[in-house]
This record gives sequence, C-alpha cells and structure tokens, in this order.
Amino acid sequence: MKTHKILNDPVYGFVEVPYGILFDVMEHRYFQRLRRIKQLSLTHYVYPGALHTRFHHALGALHLMTKAISTLRFKGVDISDEEAEAVQLAILLHDVGHGPFSHTLEHTLISVHHEELSILFMERLNEEFDGGLELAMRIFKGEYPKAFLSQLVSSQLDMDRMDYLNRDSYFTGVSEGVIGYHRLIKMLAVHDNQLVVEEKGLYSVEKFLTARRIMYWQVYLHKTVLSAELMLIAVLRRAKDILEGGRALPAPASLRFFLENRDLEREDFRSQRDDLLERFAVLDDTDIAAAVKEWQLDEDPILSYLSAGLANRRLFRLEFSHEPFSASYQERIQAQIQSDIRLPKGGLDYFFLSGTESNAAYSTSKDEIGILLKKGEVLPMSKLPDHAIMPRTFIKHYLCYPKVVDDVG
Amino acid sequence: MKTHKILNDPVYGFVEVPYGILFDVMEHRYFQRLRRIKQLSLTHYVYPGALHTRFHHALGALHLMTKAISTLRFKGVDISDEEAEAVQLAILLHDVGHGPFSHTLEHTLISVHHEELSILFMERLNEEFDGGLELAMRIFKGEYPKAFLSQLVSSQLDMDRMDYLNRDSYFTGVSEGVIGYHRLIKMLAVHDNQLVVEEKGLYSVEKFLTARRIMYWQVYLHKTVLSAELMLIAVLRRAKDILEGGRALPAPASLRFFLENRDLEREDFRSQRDDLLERFAVLDDTDIAAAVKEWQLDEDPILSYLSAGLANRRLFRLEFSHEPFSASYQERIQAQIQSDIRLPKGGLDYFFLSGTESNAAYSTSKDEIGILLKKGEVLPMSKLPDHAIMPRTFIKHYLCYPKVVDDVG
Amino acid sequence: MKTHKILNDPVYGFVEVPYGILFDVMEHRYFQRLRRIKQLSLTHYVYPGALHTRFHHALGALHLMTKAISTLRFKGVDISDEEAEAVQLAILLHDVGHGPFSHTLEHTLISVHHEELSILFMERLNEEFDGGLELAMRIFKGEYPKAFLSQLVSSQLDMDRMDYLNRDSYFTGVSEGVIGYHRLIKMLAVHDNQLVVEEKGLYSVEKFLTARRIMYWQVYLHKTVLSAELMLIAVLRRAKDILEGGRALPAPASLRFFLENRDLEREDFRSQRDDLLERFAVLDDTDIAAAVKEWQLDEDPILSYLSAGLANRRLFRLEFSHEPFSASYQERIQAQIQSDIRLPKGGLDYFFLSGTESNAAYSTSKDEIGILLKKGEVLPMSKLPDHAIMPRTFIKHYLCYPKVVDDVG
Amino acid sequence: MKTHKILNDPVYGFVEVPYGILFDVMEHRYFQRLRRIKQLSLTHYVYPGALHTRFHHALGALHLMTKAISTLRFKGVDISDEEAEAVQLAILLHDVGHGPFSHTLEHTLISVHHEELSILFMERLNEEFDGGLELAMRIFKGEYPKAFLSQLVSSQLDMDRMDYLNRDSYFTGVSEGVIGYHRLIKMLAVHDNQLVVEEKGLYSVEKFLTARRIMYWQVYLHKTVLSAELMLIAVLRRAKDILEGGRALPAPASLRFFLENRDLEREDFRSQRDDLLERFAVLDDTDIAAAVKEWQLDEDPILSYLSAGLANRRLFRLEFSHEPFSASYQERIQAQIQSDIRLPKGGLDYFFLSGTESNAAYSTSKDEIGILLKKGEVLPMSKLPDHAIMPRTFIKHYLCYPKVVDDVG
Repeated sequence: MKTHKILNDPVYGFVEVPYGILFDVMEHRYFQRLRRIKQLSLTHYVYPGALHTRFHHALGALHLMTKAISTLRFKGVDISDEEAEAVQLAILLHDVGHGPFSHTLEHTLISVHHEELSILFMERLNEEFDGGLELAMRIFKGEYPKAFLSQLVSSQLDMDRMDYLNRDSYFTGVSEGVIGYHRLIKMLAVHDNQLVVEEKGLYSVEKFLTARRIMYWQVYLHKTVLSAELMLIAVLRRAKDILEGGRALPAPASLRFFLENRDLEREDFRSQRDDLLERFAVLDDTDIAAAVKEWQLDEDPILSYLSAGLANRRLFRLEFSHEPFSASYQERIQAQIQSDIRLPKGGLDYFFLSGTESNAAYSTSKDEIGILLKKGEVLPMSKLPDHAIMPRTFIKHYLCYPKVVDDVG
Repeated sequence: MKTHKILNDPVYGFVEVPYGILFDVMEHRYFQRLRRIKQLSLTHYVYPGALHTRFHHALGALHLMTKAISTLRFKGVDISDEEAEAVQLAILLHDVGHGPFSHTLEHTLISVHHEELSILFMERLNEEFDGGLELAMRIFKGEYPKAFLSQLVSSQLDMDRMDYLNRDSYFTGVSEGVIGYHRLIKMLAVHDNQLVVEEKGLYSVEKFLTARRIMYWQVYLHKTVLSAELMLIAVLRRAKDILEGGRALPAPASLRFFLENRDLEREDFRSQRDDLLERFAVLDDTDIAAAVKEWQLDEDPILSYLSAGLANRRLFRLEFSHEPFSASYQERIQAQIQSDIRLPKGGLDYFFLSGTESNAAYSTSKDEIGILLKKGEVLPMSKLPDHAIMPRTFIKHYLCYPKVVDDVG
Repeated sequence: MKTHKILNDPVYGFVEVPYGILFDVMEHRYFQRLRRIKQLSLTHYVYPGALHTRFHHALGALHLMTKAISTLRFKGVDISDEEAEAVQLAILLHDVGHGPFSHTLEHTLISVHHEELSILFMERLNEEFDGGLELAMRIFKGEYPKAFLSQLVSSQLDMDRMDYLNRDSYFTGVSEGVIGYHRLIKMLAVHDNQLVVEEKGLYSVEKFLTARRIMYWQVYLHKTVLSAELMLIAVLRRAKDILEGGRALPAPASLRFFLENRDLEREDFRSQRDDLLERFAVLDDTDIAAAVKEWQLDEDPILSYLSAGLANRRLFRLEFSHEPFSASYQERIQAQIQSDIRLPKGGLDYFFLSGTESNAAYSTSKDEIGILLKKGEVLPMSKLPDHAIMPRTFIKHYLCYPKVVDDVG
Repeated sequence: MKTHKILNDPVYGFVEVPYGILFDVMEHRYFQRLRRIKQLSLTHYVYPGALHTRFHHALGALHLMTKAISTLRFKGVDISDEEAEAVQLAILLHDVGHGPFSHTLEHTLISVHHEELSILFMERLNEEFDGGLELAMRIFKGEYPKAFLSQLVSSQLDMDRMDYLNRDSYFTGVSEGVIGYHRLIKMLAVHDNQLVVEEKGLYSVEKFLTARRIMYWQVYLHKTVLSAELMLIAVLRRAKDILEGGRALPAPASLRFFLENRDLEREDFRSQRDDLLERFAVLDDTDIAAAVKEWQLDEDPILSYLSAGLANRRLFRLEFSHEPFSASYQERIQAQIQSDIRLPKGGLDYFFLSGTESNAAYSTSKDEIGILLKKGEVLPMSKLPDHAIMPRTFIKHYLCYPKVVDDVG
C-alpha cells in the first residue's frame, strides 16, 4: 500500500525512497556501511558538527535528483520511468565505493579510485538484483545517449555537488556554502540532450560556484583539517611499514588485511572481485579509529607519537604559501625537528610533510555549464557578457610538521 | 532602571536602543516617518514580501554597529563612550533624508541627494538636542580623525550595506543575498585608523561582494521592478506638468506643495531649511499611493493610463541589452506605440522610456577594502594573490514601453 | 507552453499558480487589491516587520493546499482535477472579502462579516467566469459531500491557519509560532470523507495548537497592538459622527462613501450587490492611512488628537486583567481623564475604551481534529490517552485610555 | 593578546571559550573524550543526522551560560568574575561523567550515575588545577548560597536543557523542538537568589516545555531508537555473561576491563578513584562500536545474532501500550519466539525485553519555574491564571522482540 519509505533529513525535511529496487539497494549492507563513513573525514576537528555520513549525503543527492527529474519532466523533457529509476540508482550509489575517511585514505589503503570501486559494487549488485542496475551503470559511466542523465550524476552542476554544499554548510555551520538549490533545480532544462540552465538562473549558478570555491578554502582545505588528514595518512603508512617489517600490530581483522596486502590495485579488484569487495565492505571509520586508539601505546615511537597526537587533537602546524617554499627554509625546519624531537631513523618521512593543494571554482577547459538564452540558443557560461566567473586555479603549497618546532621564519 | 528599549526584528531577533539621545531621536517624528517609507520602493510588485521600511533598516544597521563597536573594543581599539554613541547616531540617521519611494523619486520630487537631506535633518536635530549630534555629524561627513568610524557608516564594507543585504534577502526570500554578517563583523579590525578585515575573513568578504552583485541584478535592478519605478517617475512628471499648465489635481496637501514647487534644490533647502524640512517630513509613501489611486480617474489620458497601470500592476515591458539599442529599433517601437495607442501629443515622452543601469560588485578605483595579513601588514583586497573579485562594471541599456506594442524584434 | 506562474515567497521559497482560472482570478482587481491590505492591521507598530498582506497570505494558503491535495491523492484519496481546482479557488478567495485593516475595522466601516463578503465576491466572479467558481463556492460554504475539502479550507486544522501561523511568525520574528507544516501536511488523511491526521502526527498537531495559542497572546492580542487598533476604530467612529453632524471631512472618495453611508448591512450588499462590491473593492489600507494623516490637523479636537496619536505612535495605555475591572476603578480613571485632558463633551466615549478579548487554543465543543489510529479507528483528539491539550478558553478584560493619566492603581 | 578561542557551531554560529582555566579544561583529555561520545546514542538509526557529541553540547551550554550571565548582570544581578567563571566551569563539565552511548549504557557498564562521575572528574581536575574548580563544584552540587547559579546549571529551565533541545532539533531536523532561547534568556531574572522568568516571557516558557515534551516522544523515546538501545544493552549483558563464564572475547582493552569487572559501584570509584577514572576516561563510543562489529562473527549465537542485528540495523520490533501488557499476551509472544528462532537456553532473557518509559513535561512537585509578575511578586508557574501546562506524567509500557515473530495480536 505504502509506496515509499520516509527518512528524516534536517537539510531537506524528508527524503523519500520508493519501495522496490531503490529501497532494497538502500537496505543492502554495501550501502548501509556508508552510515559508518563520515562525509568529511576529520573536518570535525575544526567544525565539530561535521559528523555527517556518506549515507546521508547519498540520500540527499537522491532527493535532489527526484526533484530534478520532476522539474525536467514538467518542462516536457522525456524521461521514462525506467530511466528515472536508473538515474536515481546511479546517484544513490555514486559514492558507494568510498572507504574509511573517504578521500583522505583513498590512496593509502588501496590504490583504486573510489569511482572505480563504485562501479565494481554496482556490477556486483547488478548480479544480485538480476540485471536491475544495467541502465544505472550505463548512465553512471556516461555511456547512455541521453547525456543529461549522466550530467545530473556528474558534471559541474550535478546533484552530488548540490547536496554536499548544502549538507556540509548545514553541519559545519559555514553559511557561505548555502546555495539556492531550490531555485537552481527549477532552472534546469535540457537542450540537445545536454543539461543546461535557463538564463534567469544565471545568478544562482554564480552563487553556487562562489559557494563551492569558498567551501574549498574555508572547510575542505582548512589548514587544521589538512594537518589532521596528513597525520592520519602518516599513521597508516607507518603501520604498513611496521607490518612489512614483520612485527604484528593490533588492529581489527578487516583493517589488518588491507595493511598487510598493501596497495591493491584495480586489476586485483577486477580479478578477485567478490572476495576483495566483501573484505572492503566490512571496513569503515570505526576500524581506523579503533586502531589509532590502540596504537597510542605501541612500542614504535613514531606510530605512538602520531596516533596520540591524532587521538588527543595535538596536531602538526601547517603553513600555506602561494609560492613554493625555498629549499633552505625547508632544511632549516628539518634541522629543527631533528634537534628538538630526537627523531628515530627515517622519522623525517613522517614528521615533515609537504605538498600542494589547488582549487578552481569553475573549469572552462571542458564540459562547461551551458546557459539557455531566452532566444533559445545555448552558450557556455564563460561566453556570457555578464558572468563574473574567474576561471582561475588557485594553488597553495604547504609544509606540515610538529608544533614543538620553533618559528624559524 | 531599564537601560534600553527592545524592538522586534525577525532578521536579528532583537534590536536594542539605549535610552538617552538614541532613543529620543528614534522617537522623533523625523525618524518615525521612516515607518512609512518602504526600503525597496515598488520591489514588492515582484517580491511581495518586500514591504519592509527604512525605519527597520536603520534600526538593523544600528544593531550591527553596536556589534561592530563591541568587537573592535574587544580587540583593543580605543572607542570612547561618546564616540560610540556618535557613530550609532550617525548610522541611525544615515537615511533620514530619504523621501517617499526612496531612490525612485529621489530626483523627481526635489533635486537634492538624500544624504544632503540627512545632513540637514541632523543639523536641525542637533539644534533641538542642544548640540548632542555634533560628533555624529562630523563622523557622518567623514571629518573625524578616526576614519574607521566614518567607514563603519559608509564604505565598501559598512553597516548600511550589511544590513540591507541581510534584510532585503530576508523579506524578498532571495537566498543568494544572505551574508555571514556574524562572521564578517568578528573579522573587523582597525589599522592606522582605517577599518580593515582580518585575513581569515577574506572569504566572507568575497561572499559579501558576490551577494551584493547578485542582489543588484536579481532584485534591485529586476526588469519588472525597474519598469514599475520608471512608470511611477513618469506619473509624477506628468502630474507636475499638468499643474504647471494651470490645472488643479487632487493630491494630499503635503505632496501638492512639492509638485507645485518643482525641482527645489539644495540651496533652497539651505536657505529655507526649517520650513522645507518640516514640509518634507510630512511626506511619505502614503501620499504618493493615495494620489496615484485618485489619478486613475483623471481626465488627462496619459496620467490616468499610467496611474491605472501602476495601481493594477499592468506594467510596461522592459527590455535589457548589453549593447545600446539601435536608433532604427527604437524608431520602430516608437512608431508602433503611436499607431497602437493613439497617443495624445507629447505622449511619447511618457510611453517610451530609455536609459542605462550599471553595477560594480567592487571598486578598485578608491577606498578599497583593506585586508590585515597575519604578519601585520595591510593590503588592498585586489592585491591579494588569491582573491577572486572581478572589479568590472556591468552596464545594461533598457527600453521600456507598453506591452500592447507587438514584438518588433 | 508554460503551465504556471511562479511567485516569490520567503516563507516557502516559491508559490506556483497554474495558468487558467486560478491565474485569471489572481490577476483580477478584486484579488490584486489584497496587495494593499495588511494581514495584521497595525501589528507593525510592535513588530515592525509585520507589513505582509492578505495577498501574500492567500497565495501561501494556496501553496499549502496544493501540497495537501498532492499528499492526499498520493494516499489514494479520490480528488478529481475539477475538485482540486475548486478547493484551490476556495482557499485563494477565502479572505477576498476583507476590507482595510482586516479584522480591526470589520464592524466599523460596514456591518457585514468578511466571509459573507467573500461569498458575494465569489458570486460576482462566478458570473464573470461563466460559472467557473460554482464548485468552489459549494466547498467554501460546506455544502459539498466530500466534507474534507471544505475542512481543508476551514476547520481547526485548515490551510488558512497553517499559512498564517507560518507567515505571521516569519514577518514578526516570533519563533514561537513556527509550525512543522511540512510534516503536518504529510500526516493528513481522509476517513469517511472527514479530514483526519495520522496518529504519528499527533505531536505535530500539539505543537501547532500551542503555536497558535502563543501567537494569540504574544502577537494578535498584544496590548500595544490592541491599543492602536482601538484608537483606529475610535478615529473612524468619530469621523462618522462628524459627517453625520453635517460637517464635511477631507477623505478619499472611496472611503467617504462608506463613512457617509454608515453601517451598511448584509441585506444592502445583497440588494445592491454590484454597485456596493465595486465601491468596496476600491477601498484599502491606503485610504484609511491617508485620511488619518489629513485628520491630524482637523478642527475637531477629538479627531485630531486621536489621529495624531496614531500617526506618530503616541498610543493609549492598555491594561489587561483576568478579573473584570471594578466600577470604582473605572470611575477613578474616567475622573482623571476628564481633569487631565479637559475633554470636550462626549469625549469620554473616545478616550476611555473597555472590553474583553478571549482565546481558546482548541475547541472540543464541535468539529474536533480527528486522529487516525494505527488500527484504523478515528478518535477525536481530546479522547486520546496521551494528548496534552487544555481545552480552556482564556478571557482577558481590558481598559484603554491616554497615558497622560497618572497611574491610579 | 587574544582573550578567547572561537569554536564553530552551526546552532549558535560561534562559541567563545575564554583563555585561562576554561580553555585549559576544554583541552584536557577528560573533556576531549566527549568528542567520541554521541549525545543521542543510537538515535541516528532513525534520525541519521543525530551524530552530534557531548563535546559540542557542553560547549553550546557554555555559550548559553555566558549569555545568561551577561543578561543577569545587565539587570543588576551581582555576579562576580570568579562566580561567572565557576558557573561556566560547572556547565562545561556537567556531563563529563558520561560514558559511551550516554544514558543507554549508564547502568550496564558500571553502576554509577553519570553525575556522580562528573563530580569525581571535577575533583580530580580540581587537584590538577590547584583548587581552581572549588567554587564550580559547590555550584554544581547546589551548595552555594546564590541558588540561581546552581539553577542555571540544573533546574527545570537550565542551560543544559536549553542547549540540548536546540541542538537535538538541529541535528535531527525535528522542528518541533526549536525553542526561542534568545528570548528565554533575555527574560531570566533573579529574585531572592532564585532564578525566575519575567512575566512577559511566560509564553516562551510554555513553548519550551511543549518542545521538550514533544522531543521526548518523537525523538528520545522513539520506538525504533528504544529498540536499538535495548539491543545494545542486551549485547553487553551477553558479553559480560560470556566473560564471566570464562571464555575470552575480542574487545579493546579499555572496554574489556569494565566487562570483566562488572558493576563497579560508587564506592569502588571513590576508593580507587584515580585508577578507575583513568580507565573510564579512555573508554568511548568507538570501543563499543568496534566490539560489536567483531562480535558479529562470535561463536555464541545470541551474541552474534544481536551484534549483527545492531550492526546492520535489523532491529527488534517494539510495541508501546498505555496499559500494561497482559500476561497471556506476553506468553504467546514468548512461545512464538521459541518456536520460530529455536533459542539456545537462557535466550529469552535477550530476545524478549519489556519495561516502561515515562515523561512529564513539567513537574509541580518541587522546584517549579518561578514567574516574576510585573508587580514584583513571584508565583510558581502552575499558579498563574493563564498558564496552559498540564503537569501530567505519561507512561508507556513496551515489549521488544525479534520481527521474525508473527503478529500475534
């Protein structure tokens, strides 16, 4: 009798999941595990409310997708019931391949991009659901003729981004990330099978791009968040090295497997798909958190130092610079670390971390957002006379090291 | 015993007005009349919630000023109690010179800028309050050595703009205009007597500037709003012409004076200050609205056509263009108007309206927003390596004429 | 091509009005005049944001009705397209009979209840729209077999109340009035043609009733609001008396008619329907406001005193009491008024105002809210074991008189 | 130079923690561990956003306390700087004694009430901070003459409740729980050393009590939440029994200690305070979650069944009733469980759970909320003529058992 399940969501009020394959996939343990994977990794060290999960994000993106389908159909775009269900499945599962701590550990635990894993999980589910995800997979991979369906899942203006900006703003409290999603979705249209935005939605797009740019620097690449994430990567690197060296470490069984079988690649997952997926599917934030807690007391001073720092939020200092750091500056800091902390051999690899982060609000190099002018013509956003998008990529260099080091600037 | 009056405000919850000169000025009829002057003129024809008044805006700006003073003092900036009260008075009265329909009729009823009138009202009040507004006036005119106090009242990041963006967003429902004012104010600082923003507030400033740019095109210069305002100006122009021609028109006495004594200038207000201020002070939106209602039945076909159009929201079409309209295009439309409506002589002056509107999110030509770097140095915003402000002025040309004219494009 | 008009609304984001009769009725001057009738009369004297109009309220109620229809249909309730449109028309027009300052002047200008007038306006529109409002009128009058449709328009849980609580909270800023309308509407159902609420929506109903009770005392019956409204009634009473005495008063023509033809009754409106409706339809808040402004300078001291008090917000004191005021207390105040103000003859009728106000959150005497238990049975709300509604009527007595009178308590 | 640390909070925007003992206590590992204890235990199984922590709640309550102190001082209440800091410390630490999953496991892991433990932690910190928490402890225990300070920490209208209603509403999205805390705090006053509320805040108090009542039934005692929590208690009971039986179970060391030393009591904590506190302080949600994950594969069928049910959200059915369940009904269900699941010996203790839950919005039996009338007198809330509080305690009986059991009603 009832046709859908209602889930609570403070961001949109409610999310409705139709009974049938969408509900069944949501109930599947592959999807339920996303309840234990935080959307924003260690961001809660800076924004304590940011504990929301990939589970909630996927449901939110499904909600927006449902709204978008309804808007497009209302405007006369032909979307069959089968296509509607498929694109909903695609967005529901777009992140199902994420592992513990999402992007942070993406290349530390295994060497496979999360979208690759999402596809593998979908393939596996497709078998279990007797081909019911066939069309969803084509859309997800961009192989379906109605390109706009794929673009709703993944493009510069997709339901994924719209949900995460809304959601991350809500849970961090950073109002700068709030977007007018209601209006944005009402302005969506389709032209030549491409997803476009009606001209009068132009300022909403601009606001959306600004919000995204600001969220990058203020939240996603916040220096303290980045420092915590670099430390977490270092902890796991160290654990893998110790295990490789032959010493056992306490860790949940699910995690131990991936520490011992390091750097599994796409080909491994393809060739031993069912076994590796099953192992990956029991891994989540809990395992990492439990291991780091235990490792605080480990005999290895590097592992215990880093683990205790993370557990008690004693984080490294992180410096950002628009220019690369000079070699001499880096050497001075390294020298200080070694004199102040009396590092064990090889310690510098874990106590002096450097790299770059970059962000572009908008890319004009490909797949621009198309604006549907009142006269019926479509122009790429950057070609409009009154847009105010700066298609520039901002790069920041960083150094990250213990705070005990004096300021050597 | 009680030290302040509490006023309700859905934007900030409450606004507190200290008893003493601030309260007394708020109670003065010069200020109370702002209750009858809408902040956004005829914008409610497009955004029906936009009925808020200059009265509420002035109180909101006072609220933000109080927060800003408290933040700056907290950071060690020296602001005496006398200076605090003066800068509060200055912001409370910054718009007291606005007449009916604010900017729309600013140069139609009289030929004096509203800030000039605000100064005249302050002078008058200063006499009434025995010199109690002396310091407020110096700050308002930018003649006080602590420049940051004047900048809190008027600059590219003043309390006026902060309040109107918040307030106009709230009452229109255009979420694109919401700014993180709480955070922005916390980031204010003073350096060399100049108001500056701490570096970590950079993204909040960027959001603020984007919000302002978007509000301009989406609300303040919305084509339907502009059309209604151009019609209102035309109505009053016509009424003045009729009166000049010697025919009486029904109108509230307060309004009739300014229609009959057209184009009073700054010098007139200076030389007959008390009389003219008193007359101006009894004029508000009500008088214009009542007159337009009556004029719907006037014998002059131009006046009645325009008045009825306004009263019943039968508005002219407005076309925007990034390029100037060609002479031939304009002539074709004029010809159509004359053939379709059979205009009385001189009618084209009221039925074919053209001009330009422009907006710049941010000006780099003078008085840039200063950013206080962590190292203690101050840079103008546009000199920062990672700002994303496009200091471009956007210009739009418009034509505005009755909808009965067929599309001649 | 386009199927509906979108209107901006900060409360719900957008309101969609389908093209066809709903759009045409909205564009009709009878409905457009609601743009000039404030929802909450003089409440903005206490809550300065409360300037929203009956126009906006009617659209908001239409929005909720559209949601409710969609929820009920989704649950399998049979509602034809014709019925849906009719119930939307009924809610859109439910307040079209309100005159200037809504309830305040309801029995001062004419002696007809606003719902009577709404029906007359609907009849008139029905003729103009060739019978298109026939069904809407049956629903509005409660004469249609599907009682739940009438209950959506008018009952203890109708779309009218839901919208005005939301809207009045939004514009006053009184958060106590916010209701979870989203959830409430999702919980609506129909049982034996009656509108009911699913059991799990019980707490939302409770919240709704509490919100309504609180809004009554905190906003609708706020003592300062009540004082202003009593003064406005007194002003108009006085004006009518002066006119009856034979002296002319300046007033817009539309208003003058009703002042001179006092106390028109239902029968008058029935017998001279078209003429009187047309005259009533050009009357709105503007006319009253303009008249009150002019009357400040009238020769009659009572009229000018009251008008100036209203215009400059110099309001009478209002005392509330749970017990009736004693005769001796009232006499003492009357004596003081007469000695302090030196009232003209008959002045006490305008300077000493008394009466009672009452409010009940919920009535158990008839038409209770029905709760649909999980087992399928319906119980009146007050019969549920765990409701917490106190079905009590609260009465307050008031006295209202000039503040110049000393406290005689 | 800087005088406080700013923390992000979506509920209030920012929370400021003064440097000095408040900041140092916040940084202490005893307090930081609250980052790993969810405020609402397993509520996120129903409200997926409800992942917020005791850490965030304690900071939010501190924020409200700071506002309350400032309001009271503003009204002339004498609060010294030392008292202000002490009452802030008291609220910051009021929940520091909570263990993993807060109330759920309060009497399962140990037999000590969390407030007892909060006091023990404060004593320990007091030693560490050289007596700096002396006054905070007196206030917390209600032993300080200025009773209102203790009442701000714990009473029917304390900062604890105000924060958790706000916060739990925000993260669950249940708007029924939103309170007007801003206004409530402004209405606080002190009379004869008791915390009271000004008369005009009466409706805000009523709204607050209604909100609390609704949150109880809609969130805190939601049947699915209760079911999950009962299952978690059963899991830990089973684990303790297995350990007592002599078989080892995998579990983090921190947890294993409390499973093996079951039912430690207040006297144990008093006599071995430093050791037991230290052990308790390293225990948090992570340990329980990790153990439950591992136990899914345990050889004991009861432990693995319950653990897998919890981990994969396959929860027991829970029935609520206003009347006690009849013995025969309970026996029928027990019989079904045993026939359907083939329980091991003793299994019924874990598969058939029953009890009662109750809630009262407001207690009139003691410590009523005092209302300060305009005339200066204080009345207990329930004695006011126009309150609408129903001081009734609602009791619900529940049964909880596997869903595989057919409906036997």
